[in-house]
Amino acid sequence: MALRSDWSDKVCPVARTLDIVGDPWIMVILREVFAGNRRFDTLKTKLDVADTVLSKRLETLVDANLLRRDAYSGNVRPRFDYNLTDAGLDTLPIIHALARWGNAHLPRHDTPPMRIYCRRCSIETSSADWCITCAAPLTADTTLWRTAGNPEVELSLAPR
Amino acid sequence: MALRSDWSDKVCPVARTLDIVGDPWIMVILREVFAGNRRFDTLKTKLDVADTVLSKRLETLVDANLLRRDAYSGNVRPRFDYNLTDAGLDTLPIIHALARWGNAHLPRHDTPPMRIYCRRCSIETSSADWCITCAAPLTADTTLWRTAGNPEVELSLAPR
Repeated sequence: MALRSDWSDKVCPVARTLDIVGDPWIMVILREVFAGNRRFDTLKTKLDVADTVLSKRLETLVDANLLRRDAYSGNVRPRFDYNLTDAGLDTLPIIHALARWGNAHLPRHDTPPMRIYCRRCSIETSSADWCITCAAPLTADTTLWRTAGNPEVELSLAPR
Repeated sequence: MALRSDWSDKVCPVARTLDIVGDPWIMVILREVFAGNRRFDTLKTKLDVADTVLSKRLETLVDANLLRRDAYSGNVRPRFDYNLTDAGLDTLPIIHALARWGNAHLPRHDTPPMRIYCRRCSIETSSADWCITCAAPLTADTTLWRTAGNPEVELSLAPR
């Protein structure tokens, strides 16, 4: 990864987490997988990223147990979906916190902000991980994103 | 920064935010400034980081208006505190989300987790940005961290 040294054994949990996700490509790959884009070719197109950059990050995410590589084709040449593990699903608040900061402090005047809704009560939340209306944690299966370009993107929960 | 390309104009606010904070050193510098370590030499010691790495990140943080450089000495050679701006203070939920993920998925068995308390009700929260007991947003002046090594670190709000 981009780190100069290994932070996996740091006392601070912020540093240990950054040892895996402290790379901007890692976070946008996770964002795409949450939005339902789980295949190499789709990720490559969506992120406009070089094969080597993408394959190295996917390998990191699988090795760190944030993504799971599941074969979806019985052909001679197998193909894979990248699905979120429980640890991967738990990165949702990090993505939300990044999105909320960007909405607030780096607005684009030609683009609406990314909005985060609770699907139980259909009300927008102003927290990264909590529905402030029905008072329950936000998870992939209870969260809806409304983003520019795709007026309504529903998060897809990874099959277990 | 570590990015290969400029993400400052991306449609997605997650990517725009990562254009600034998608570097692990940036996040641990912010963590230290929240914990009250605001001077170059203190940051250098706490983070065990090379001068060039630290000064480049501090420059990025000041240019992006997350930190403000305030002179604290009237001597011939001025010295500076790095204080959080409003935009810098608003990165607290990102730090909390990273800490909570590390606590949950990368535990250290010899070290207690970093705990996040609401100072109004003195109860630990299980959200990155919300007191789930008194139902109010967590900010630097309402949050207490309990971390290993320093049994109780109070966040210091930057002077305005």
